[in-house]
Amino acid sequence: MTEVIIAGIGQTEVGEHWEIGLRDLAYAAIHDAIHDAGGLKPQSLFVGNMLAPNLSRQAHVGALIADYAGLTGIEAVTVEAAGASGGAALRQGYLAVASGFVDVALVVGVEKFTDKVGSEVDEALATASDSDFEAVQGMTPAAQAALLMKRYMHENEVSADGFAGFALTAHANGVANKNAMFRKAIKAETYAKAEMVSDPLNMFDMAPNADGAAALLLTRRELYHPRRGLPSSFSNPLVKIAGSGASSDTLALHDRKDMLYFDTAQLSAGKAMKQVGLTLDGIDFFEYHDAFSIYAALQLEAVGFAIKGSGWKLAADGSIGLKGKIPCATMGGMKARGFPGGAAGVYQAVEATMQLRGQAEANQVKDAKFGLIQSLGGPASTAVSHILQRLD
Amino acid sequence: MTEVIIAGIGQTEVGEHWEIGLRDLAYAAIHDAIHDAGGLKPQSLFVGNMLAPNLSRQAHVGALIADYAGLTGIEAVTVEAAGASGGAALRQGYLAVASGFVDVALVVGVEKFTDKVGSEVDEALATASDSDFEAVQGMTPAAQAALLMKRYMHENEVSADGFAGFALTAHANGVANKNAMFRKAIKAETYAKAEMVSDPLNMFDMAPNADGAAALLLTRRELYHPRRGLPSSFSNPLVKIAGSGASSDTLALHDRKDMLYFDTAQLSAGKAMKQVGLTLDGIDFFEYHDAFSIYAALQLEAVGFAIKGSGWKLAADGSIGLKGKIPCATMGGMKARGFPGGAAGVYQAVEATMQLRGQAEANQVKDAKFGLIQSLGGPASTAVSHILQRLD
Repeated sequence: MTEVIIAGIGQTEVGEHWEIGLRDLAYAAIHDAIHDAGGLKPQSLFVGNMLAPNLSRQAHVGALIADYAGLTGIEAVTVEAAGASGGAALRQGYLAVASGFVDVALVVGVEKFTDKVGSEVDEALATASDSDFEAVQGMTPAAQAALLMKRYMHENEVSADGFAGFALTAHANGVANKNAMFRKAIKAETYAKAEMVSDPLNMFDMAPNADGAAALLLTRRELYHPRRGLPSSFSNPLVKIAGSGASSDTLALHDRKDMLYFDTAQLSAGKAMKQVGLTLDGIDFFEYHDAFSIYAALQLEAVGFAIKGSGWKLAADGSIGLKGKIPCATMGGMKARGFPGGAAGVYQAVEATMQLRGQAEANQVKDAKFGLIQSLGGPASTAVSHILQRLD
Repeated sequence: MTEVIIAGIGQTEVGEHWEIGLRDLAYAAIHDAIHDAGGLKPQSLFVGNMLAPNLSRQAHVGALIADYAGLTGIEAVTVEAAGASGGAALRQGYLAVASGFVDVALVVGVEKFTDKVGSEVDEALATASDSDFEAVQGMTPAAQAALLMKRYMHENEVSADGFAGFALTAHANGVANKNAMFRKAIKAETYAKAEMVSDPLNMFDMAPNADGAAALLLTRRELYHPRRGLPSSFSNPLVKIAGSGASSDTLALHDRKDMLYFDTAQLSAGKAMKQVGLTLDGIDFFEYHDAFSIYAALQLEAVGFAIKGSGWKLAADGSIGLKGKIPCATMGGMKARGFPGGAAGVYQAVEATMQLRGQAEANQVKDAKFGLIQSLGGPASTAVSHILQRLD
């Protein structure tokens, strides 16, 4: 079986980039990824983007970015699956390289929220839910997550404070990540006093929408070795994409058999693990999609790290901390690093690569060999999972 | 090398489907394609869609359609490259099957223009051009095509009537296509007297925006044979995807070295032909992207069927007719069959499959063995080319 490796990574700071546009953000991440890969040149570009047609009035982002990055002429497409767009773009890049038709693929996730503000952003985000049966009723993703959280609290007899651990862990991990939007640890009291967004979901149960871009260069292992002619200016441990899986579910929550079980999180992670021949014990860290803390809890349960109804306990008892049983959101996650929409899944892959290379500095998960990353669209209407592996 | 075949095709009528939505259109085409493939079930869905986030306020169309078509749980993504979205989705499906990770891929192109009208549609279409440097100035795709046509007429000393052959051929071929939007032949006088849209581009130089969906089921040849366990309810000649290529160019026309040469049309077709080991003489018909007649002329030149500045002559002298040297728009093309945005490239593949199977009835190109299809985004800012081959 062909081995696909991550030959280069790049990322911008996540935050409010008022002074630059979508194409500038993408360029910055691409530049760093190509440099990191010792100048490796891609033939194909896969852009993960969620909202540019609405927020930036710009479709056709693939060709736009290829041109602006000095790669005019290469193949370029946009891959969209709402919040899972970044993970989905990574999977398309992976399949393209694995197919043998593409030698070097560039995967870029990019989102520019600050082209619009407030209600326009909410309206754009709502296009990820069912327009005919949810969005048209005024349902936003935050309102949807609040409904899930309320039901979860009711069924499992958890108070809202039971979710504090997700935000505390994320913010603690964000402190040392120079690309994180929020680099300040928070206390349990801060969480408890936080402003309500959509009861019971408070400001700290929700990741901040933010601008950002991240990039990956993928190639086949046998093409990468310097002796085979492709340059390498560094000697990082190689990181391989060892497993990949994707799955879809209904957009509307009311169409689910059990809305408190994220089928796609289970299915996509299961496919990826089966490909690697790995059980959960072998996973050293988990980058979940903590756009909302309730999502994080439900992913921990669906993937199998916790039994149903008890995912929140792993956050409450420190199990998801950097030295815990299953470190999560190791560079701050979406909560503290920020949520750059369709770029989020690519940030996960960049951060996981840093962990596996041993470049995560203060946030390093000791001896990390396998990392699971999972990118969600809507309330797990799409899930894309990848397992990244350090090759020794 | 793995052989990827088209195991099933489906399409809806192209037109104004006021009474049904995006998901219904997609479902109809999927239903027919699965039936045509004898019940073959896909694991992955690739949706080619261009404008749903704007026109239907619906992103995340992959998961939505998978669910609505009764395929809940399968992998599903949207692939976007403006007008080339359909061709790009086909290429992603092809790579997924060729990679060996996906056994059966479903490719669906779908567009629903009639959710909005008039200026809203124009504004949405303009997101395919450069938002910062073109759309913001009020440039629409039709205005852009008119500029190209004017320059072409000037440089090559052609009158506007020189383009009549494109519309005449398309409308003649649309008559017998029961899925075509316009099924009426037109005369040269009709073209000459047609209302101007953007001087010198008249109503017949421009394809009508229309609703529609088309679907393809792809699988590897060795998986398809009935004896290997997959059902087949028919005995059509097998059609293979023999070549595939994609390329990008600047979005803005003013960034081109020569705006009258469609680099991407040449590059993407060249890649596909190289893969097959075929020269132009071997191509039996060409489904070009005649969203505008000037595009058709420039594609004929870039691909190599005509020398620069003389593509229009192939339309004027009958060479692109069904019995001509290189039949084009054989089922009516975008001009008469209609232009369903991101579905257009999938319609091309469905129609080419009909030609290669010998199912094109009155429009049959005799003994067709190789068909070239080319899907463009903007003025060839993206081009995706495929060569389909009849296997005997």
